[in-house]
Amino acid sequence: MSSEAPPASSAEELAADLSAAAISKKQLKKDARKAEKAEKAAQRQQQQPQGNVEEDPHAANYGDVPVEEIQSKAISGRTWTDVGDLGEASAGRRVLVRGAAQAIRPVSKKMAFVVLRQSMSTVQCVLVASADAGVSMQMVRFATSLSKESIVDVEGVVSLPKEPLKATTQQVEIQARKLYCINRAIPTLPINLEDAARSEAEFERAEQAGEKLVRVGQDTRLNFRAIDLRTPSNQAIFRIQCQVENKFREFLLSKKFVGIHSPKLISGSSEGGAAVFKLQYNGQPACLAQSPQLYKQMAICGGFERVFEVGPVFRAENSNTHRHLCEFVGLDAEMEIREHYFEVCDIIDGLFVAIFKHLNENCKKELETINRQYPFEPLKYLKKTLKLTYEEGIQMLKEAGTEIEPMGDLNTEAEKKLGRLVKDKPLPGSSPLNFAGLALHSPAFLQCHLGPAGEEIISGAQRIHTPELLTKRATECGIDASTIASYIESFSYGAPPHGGFGVGLERVVMLFCALNNIRKGSLFPRDPQRLVP
Amino acid sequence: MSSEAPPASSAEELAADLSAAAISKKQLKKDARKAEKAEKAAQRQQQQPQGNVEEDPHAANYGDVPVEEIQSKAISGRTWTDVGDLGEASAGRRVLVRGAAQAIRPVSKKMAFVVLRQSMSTVQCVLVASADAGVSMQMVRFATSLSKESIVDVEGVVSLPKEPLKATTQQVEIQARKLYCINRAIPTLPINLEDAARSEAEFERAEQAGEKLVRVGQDTRLNFRAIDLRTPSNQAIFRIQCQVENKFREFLLSKKFVGIHSPKLISGSSEGGAAVFKLQYNGQPACLAQSPQLYKQMAICGGFERVFEVGPVFRAENSNTHRHLCEFVGLDAEMEIREHYFEVCDIIDGLFVAIFKHLNENCKKELETINRQYPFEPLKYLKKTLKLTYEEGIQMLKEAGTEIEPMGDLNTEAEKKLGRLVKDKPLPGSSPLNFAGLALHSPAFLQCHLGPAGEEIISGAQRIHTPELLTKRATECGIDASTIASYIESFSYGAPPHGGFGVGLERVVMLFCALNNIRKGSLFPRDPQRLVP
Repeated sequence: MSSEAPPASSAEELAADLSAAAISKKQLKKDARKAEKAEKAAQRQQQQPQGNVEEDPHAANYGDVPVEEIQSKAISGRTWTDVGDLGEASAGRRVLVRGAAQAIRPVSKKMAFVVLRQSMSTVQCVLVASADAGVSMQMVRFATSLSKESIVDVEGVVSLPKEPLKATTQQVEIQARKLYCINRAIPTLPINLEDAARSEAEFERAEQAGEKLVRVGQDTRLNFRAIDLRTPSNQAIFRIQCQVENKFREFLLSKKFVGIHSPKLISGSSEGGAAVFKLQYNGQPACLAQSPQLYKQMAICGGFERVFEVGPVFRAENSNTHRHLCEFVGLDAEMEIREHYFEVCDIIDGLFVAIFKHLNENCKKELETINRQYPFEPLKYLKKTLKLTYEEGIQMLKEAGTEIEPMGDLNTEAEKKLGRLVKDKPLPGSSPLNFAGLALHSPAFLQCHLGPAGEEIISGAQRIHTPELLTKRATECGIDASTIASYIESFSYGAPPHGGFGVGLERVVMLFCALNNIRKGSLFPRDPQRLVP
Repeated sequence: MSSEAPPASSAEELAADLSAAAISKKQLKKDARKAEKAEKAAQRQQQQPQGNVEEDPHAANYGDVPVEEIQSKAISGRTWTDVGDLGEASAGRRVLVRGAAQAIRPVSKKMAFVVLRQSMSTVQCVLVASADAGVSMQMVRFATSLSKESIVDVEGVVSLPKEPLKATTQQVEIQARKLYCINRAIPTLPINLEDAARSEAEFERAEQAGEKLVRVGQDTRLNFRAIDLRTPSNQAIFRIQCQVENKFREFLLSKKFVGIHSPKLISGSSEGGAAVFKLQYNGQPACLAQSPQLYKQMAICGGFERVFEVGPVFRAENSNTHRHLCEFVGLDAEMEIREHYFEVCDIIDGLFVAIFKHLNENCKKELETINRQYPFEPLKYLKKTLKLTYEEGIQMLKEAGTEIEPMGDLNTEAEKKLGRLVKDKPLPGSSPLNFAGLALHSPAFLQCHLGPAGEEIISGAQRIHTPELLTKRATECGIDASTIASYIESFSYGAPPHGGFGVGLERVVMLFCALNNIRKGSLFPRDPQRLVP
């Protein structure tokens, strides 16, 4: 669906207008004239302090590009190279790259370095004034006048440095011949990318050396997320997140699951409880779905034997912890069960082993990058869900000093304790687990897959599939069955036994990379205090 | 994130409690006793009318399975076969299948047919009373007593029918030996699956024959969506939808895009306008994102060169049309532009050609299935976006009788007319297009890819990437720039030129399958009148 909706005043149109570079020709011309003037003024200002008023015969090789020049005006046909693709094989080639000027180091009037960054890669560009190369001292000065993080185009020749480079991810340099600024960053950024990218070890080394480095707090990072996201570890974290989702989808598709999208706007009192965001929907009370639970079950009733969904989940909980968000991405699955919930466990086992294996094998660069800033041990996990009978679970608890009344239900505390006991079980010939599947079976069904602190990561269960039992259970839970009538009715049209599970995408990333805060795994996190940006 | 959040009264826990078949042992036993009694009573009732009180030696081969038997009690180790996997090669094999009893046809006291359906496949099960086979007349009677759509397990031997079968998708039958009902549907369903699955042609044939068939209206379908979704065409539509999304992701991932998730809960006045759902977020005014526009641009500012997102989009528009929804799934992409928006067009071209090709090649069965109920012509589309200069566009309009003031902006009406003109251009040696990309360039940027009625399907543009121009544009659009300060500020930290596009997943499905209503492409659609189910 696009912006063609009729009302001219719709927010959609405003947003489109706002974001589109659709400028009338008159306006373009006016802007162009203004920009030209501004640029000339800026150049004058730049040149005046140095008293350099002489004409530069190489002036065409550098400068600020007016905004309208890069507004779909023309196609030059030039070939662009990705910084990440530069390697020793590129040596001697003339290339054109675009990136952010991450570091600018003047060496002398005749020489400067500019480190260009393009997503996870950086390359050092060398400027040496030389009439043969078409590089003037003015061009060197122009380069050193750039503000950090400005967007810059560099054309130059790839060369192999005499000494290996430390500050860049590429083992080659670019001998710059042309350098244009596409968009200037403000001179003083609210946070410094170098500060935001430091590891704890760096801080310790600096402290030992008597240096004081700037720390960027979690909240400040989030306030200026557009800068914070540029750190190598953030670039890596969200590529990992993308891969977790990809593998989740790929694995389930290979097991005949169908990807669905259930509505997030649901009838007012569908789930009840305090943790629900409420709103008005065309005069009706509505709320935001706290999980796709009811709808993925209805899809099963609708004849889709196996379904999964990746989508936002909303929780109005006032939990200010390191592991709660008010909006997160749910990875949910639901499937028909022939006989036993263990069929779901088999899917979970295969799925998570596939995801972890995929990350370890295909995201090495990303994992190393995260490790440099936030060191972590590789995840240790059981390849199969540990299946305990109720009696075995009781026995484990008893041995650890917790007595459970025979045949009594396990309370949350006992469940958690059991989780920790499983987690602390060392792998054969190895250290304790970071992650283990646990299905405790009969009389109550429990499944939790555990994170580093014995925390539950996944929750799943066989569901009730008869309307009678559902109505009874709703009443027991204090839910007025009439408010979820269409859900309960779905089970009266012939519903197969089924079960499923749900897990938060951010939590999987947090677990795998041992991040200390769930917010690090969310692009623009939402917690009780944060709604911006 | 899972149900382990502390507050015991949280809706999440209630939902989990409600859906999980976690029943205390006592309750299980009590339920079991009750179910046993109920079953016996049902059996007595069944048997009484026929006066059959004699013991059936084959009574173990059929019956209702008590609900607790299929509540993860035991694993039988039996092998289950998918109905869709049955073929001539299966002949002679003994198989076990589960499905919905789509049709039940008594032939005599000794014979009956039960058509079992499993997602998109159906198979006919034959019951013939025979002491050798262990099939009693009581078993035949039990089968014919089942309500339609009940969930049934059938064990039997695969055989090749003497005549080809019409009513099933499989060319084999199952000679039933055992038949158990897992969950009974209510005797009279609110809508009949056969009625919901009829094509217009069937209605016409019936009318000509003087028969009157029941029509199931769109609204009734949606009221009982859990049944309606079982029609072959709906099973096919949502598999197509899933494949559109898969190919969208796969193509963009292959082009170095990173999949992201942006927040749906955003600051109160972010986009303004009337079409926004408003709510309270921990005491702050908030709204639901009408598009991921601002956030995907901030991700570009955050150093992710190319991003895409698949996620819900919310529009509080009171548009009761065949092509508007209040919640739909947005397929969005945003990318750095080196020089020209045509770089985005190239991605769009490649993407949609890849999606359409994938559907035509890999979803033949689904497309044929939809075609049987809703006949449609294969989509005809241009492989490349038609790129018109402003002057060419003006000329086309002029030739069609619409004069545009030289250098004046095209109004929406003129844009639409141009869209229709492009759409009506016949392909070389072929009929008019159903779908064509159109990029009208300079002075205003327009891109629309067109559907069957010249409607815009995709909207995209190069975006503004300087804070000055953004602020100016916001003011022109009547948006208080201070309300989107964090968005605008993102462009002052060094932002590359970029552009992107957005399209509704449901609209792509609607376009490709020529569906007459967008609701047919949404699992549980939301329109101004509909919030349930």
